[in-house]
Amino acid sequence: MNWKRKDLLGIEELTQGEIIHILDASVSFKEILKRPIKKVPTLRGKTIVNFFFEPSTRTRISFELAEKRLSADTVNFSTDGSSVQKNETLLDTALNVEAMKIDAAVVRHSGAGVPHMLAKKLSVPVINAGDGAHEHPTQALLDMFTIREMKGRLENLKVAIIGDVRFSRVARSNIWGLTKMGAKVHIVAPPTFIPPYLENLNIKICHSLDDVIKDMDVLMALRIQTERHLPSPLRRQSGSGASETMLRQAGLPRLAEDGEAGKSSFFPSAREYRRFFGITMDRLKKAKKDVLAMHPGPINRGVEMDPEVADSKHSVILEQVTNGVAVRMAVLYVLLGPHTKDFGVGARRQE
Amino acid sequence: MNWKRKDLLGIEELTQGEIIHILDASVSFKEILKRPIKKVPTLRGKTIVNFFFEPSTRTRISFELAEKRLSADTVNFSTDGSSVQKNETLLDTALNVEAMKIDAAVVRHSGAGVPHMLAKKLSVPVINAGDGAHEHPTQALLDMFTIREMKGRLENLKVAIIGDVRFSRVARSNIWGLTKMGAKVHIVAPPTFIPPYLENLNIKICHSLDDVIKDMDVLMALRIQTERHLPSPLRRQSGSGASETMLRQAGLPRLAEDGEAGKSSFFPSAREYRRFFGITMDRLKKAKKDVLAMHPGPINRGVEMDPEVADSKHSVILEQVTNGVAVRMAVLYVLLGPHTKDFGVGARRQE
Amino acid sequence: MNWKRKDLLGIEELTQGEIIHILDASVSFKEILKRPIKKVPTLRGKTIVNFFFEPSTRTRISFELAEKRLSADTVNFSTDGSSVQKNETLLDTALNVEAMKIDAAVVRHSGAGVPHMLAKKLSVPVINAGDGAHEHPTQALLDMFTIREMKGRLENLKVAIIGDVRFSRVARSNIWGLTKMGAKVHIVAPPTFIPPYLENLNIKICHSLDDVIKDMDVLMALRIQTERHLPSPLRRQSGSGASETMLRQAGLPRLAEDGEAGKSSFFPSAREYRRFFGITMDRLKKAKKDVLAMHPGPINRGVEMDPEVADSKHSVILEQVTNGVAVRMAVLYVLLGPHTKDFGVGARRQE
Repeated sequence: MNWKRKDLLGIEELTQGEIIHILDASVSFKEILKRPIKKVPTLRGKTIVNFFFEPSTRTRISFELAEKRLSADTVNFSTDGSSVQKNETLLDTALNVEAMKIDAAVVRHSGAGVPHMLAKKLSVPVINAGDGAHEHPTQALLDMFTIREMKGRLENLKVAIIGDVRFSRVARSNIWGLTKMGAKVHIVAPPTFIPPYLENLNIKICHSLDDVIKDMDVLMALRIQTERHLPSPLRRQSGSGASETMLRQAGLPRLAEDGEAGKSSFFPSAREYRRFFGITMDRLKKAKKDVLAMHPGPINRGVEMDPEVADSKHSVILEQVTNGVAVRMAVLYVLLGPHTKDFGVGARRQE
Repeated sequence: MNWKRKDLLGIEELTQGEIIHILDASVSFKEILKRPIKKVPTLRGKTIVNFFFEPSTRTRISFELAEKRLSADTVNFSTDGSSVQKNETLLDTALNVEAMKIDAAVVRHSGAGVPHMLAKKLSVPVINAGDGAHEHPTQALLDMFTIREMKGRLENLKVAIIGDVRFSRVARSNIWGLTKMGAKVHIVAPPTFIPPYLENLNIKICHSLDDVIKDMDVLMALRIQTERHLPSPLRRQSGSGASETMLRQAGLPRLAEDGEAGKSSFFPSAREYRRFFGITMDRLKKAKKDVLAMHPGPINRGVEMDPEVADSKHSVILEQVTNGVAVRMAVLYVLLGPHTKDFGVGARRQE
Repeated sequence: MNWKRKDLLGIEELTQGEIIHILDASVSFKEILKRPIKKVPTLRGKTIVNFFFEPSTRTRISFELAEKRLSADTVNFSTDGSSVQKNETLLDTALNVEAMKIDAAVVRHSGAGVPHMLAKKLSVPVINAGDGAHEHPTQALLDMFTIREMKGRLENLKVAIIGDVRFSRVARSNIWGLTKMGAKVHIVAPPTFIPPYLENLNIKICHSLDDVIKDMDVLMALRIQTERHLPSPLRRQSGSGASETMLRQAGLPRLAEDGEAGKSSFFPSAREYRRFFGITMDRLKKAKKDVLAMHPGPINRGVEMDPEVADSKHSVILEQVTNGVAVRMAVLYVLLGPHTKDFGVGARRQE
């Protein structure tokens, strides 16, 4: 296909064809990861900057490895948000680094919509590596790749997304992606964890894993976002207010409010959570023989999933991690590869 | 020309010929930055260590990109000064890393004279990436390059350097460079911001931007160095005392004292600052039609410069950033390129 | 020789033949460090992750340079331990990064036995870059390389290891290495600093440097491990308890206890230390004319060694640093080079 997007900001705006295009490209890069020399010259001479305004060792290393294996030069920019306090300064920082003639920016930020705002202002491709509780598109792509690789297809597969759905960007991106690909998504969460944006989607909602486990092909646990259930100074600064504006400007749906997130009633105890939503060994016995157990990591072992499940033959958790590198190589290739056109015309300072 | 210096420590000691040599070399590297593949094999196999004893994301990334685009290997060494508390340990650290057979050291430090001290002890080239309130030579080179590129020359151009001149290494390096290149430098600053070293230079001093703006070809705003107006634990440790000694040993002029810097009378309010020294849209109307507005970044928008000015056609701020990479590539090339001789003989431990 | 180990965890388990194999390989890499282009394509396309769970600028840079000069891609993972609090999470982190298809892991940790634990679980080579008070094998290898290079041999050389022996992983690794290589090791330390594991080794113990200095060929000072003499929150978490278990599982000897380390009686004042164990200029006059003065760095000048000694012709301290890069290149080459077999079979999750 003829790829036309400058950026990868979310799964919500992708077509089924675009998703398939990336998944198909990922197959080749997965092959490369099996070779003794896991490196190709595709992006030699290109420079990619990883802007991580929110700490994330795993995702940062995954992107960095994907970039290096495409022979790109990488620069890391990490900050805890204290030195980049205002959105205007954040934009100035990004424009500044872009002026150094970089070829792409990978952006993670605790504020929803930040990568979208930067994508409007920068002429180079922007890749969303997780923005607040909004989207984490490369995670959904690697999850879909993993399921497709193990099951041969996505269409009509029954996938349970379990747990902290409301504040999970992983859930949000997967819901958009899996429904577009024709999978049957089941949300398994307490009533207070059901996000409002599900209403118009063809999705089944239930409140107990036991009710649906026997029919599922895939059990996708979510990490309890303890940090999102507690208000932090950073979130108060760069949180819902500014982000909501950005999302609205981009025509994106409203997220759960900070104030709501602060309510302790959202967050049951770890033991309660496990009782209703944990993928336990006992529960696994009721599931299909070839059910897949997935988790975006890092696991709170014994809460979202029993350690024995994580280490069982059903678990594809480490396969997800491997596929993450392949999918990120594919995304960079699709956005930056030699076949792409110059998308920069008129993109900068268009306000 | 036949380049003879081991290090780039300041503009003060450079000849006009040496400045022109670097600016001319920068032209080629600017060309490279316009190519799809912005990388040349000039320094392949060379290792450059970036010692940043003072935090600086932008300058560090600019140097790192310059190094990588010359195909050098780079290693970053960053510290907030707490782990390198004494000058003796600082030297030990540098000698230690040098013993790992590196090819150059880029050094930023809050203490004036630190790169000079290291340059005396190390046999490899040392590049000053900013030392206290002393010099920031690559910034001045990129500023001169930008003016020359836009105006075709430096000679007889009228350049206003505006604001916090006394504590600005950017001002100091530009004053040395622009006067050597034949530009007419006008310092626009409050009486208490005029540094003593200007006395014997052919420079005009005035205390209000309105008095001179209509004649200027270039308006160079300085960043308010809020951090230099307040005493910090680090500055008390590695500050004026040791640094003054280093500067004196190197035959360099005395800087403003820490004690003086602590006086609040130096620092007007942001509103006051803008009133007399801010490059506002109103003021810009009185300037020449082709006047350039420059700022070393990051801007305190609405203080040193109005946002509308920073985004206007007069602004070359992002061009400065691009040129920073080109100029740093040129400096590394001049100091480290295949044509240079081995300057290491007898340089180490010569005390 | 036909190298068979997957990992380099300690000197204790190496044979004399294995030590010689690494030292001989290091000779070639030392040659490379003398060239203008200090880089070989040996590990092109390989990825090495440096896991530094304990801060260490020098060792981290030495490994990073070794990796880059072998043309490997490097990724740094640094943490102060606060984000990796539990051993289970530490293992999860390592398994996760391994799933990204890396080729080796360099591990430093304040807990003894951590690299051994990871080596059991990971299929890729693990290199111990220092584990608590246990071992620091590449330091001992570079020390032995330096002595052999300067003296032409190790056999029958008289080597004094001086000072804080009990809590020094450098001492421990050197004691194992030097005795295996046939050197005559003399421990010079206060009675309370003598570790219990020396009992069955052919080692001489004395309590004053003056008693033995005149016969020594090598004076190896140790750094006072001030940080190991004081209990820290991290050590209480990941310290002796878990580590002792790991060491016992690996059949390794018991280390000094945290509780003991906390006793202030272990730690004389700096002046006292210098009086009995410092390598002073006065003492040096009593030594052999060609005695070597060594220190793993960074030196507490004026405590373990006089500054004049560190800068004298007897000092090989900076040579040790240079050799550190060569030895680490050799270790990576031996473990990862094109001649090695795939050691990964059955190594992961073998519990």
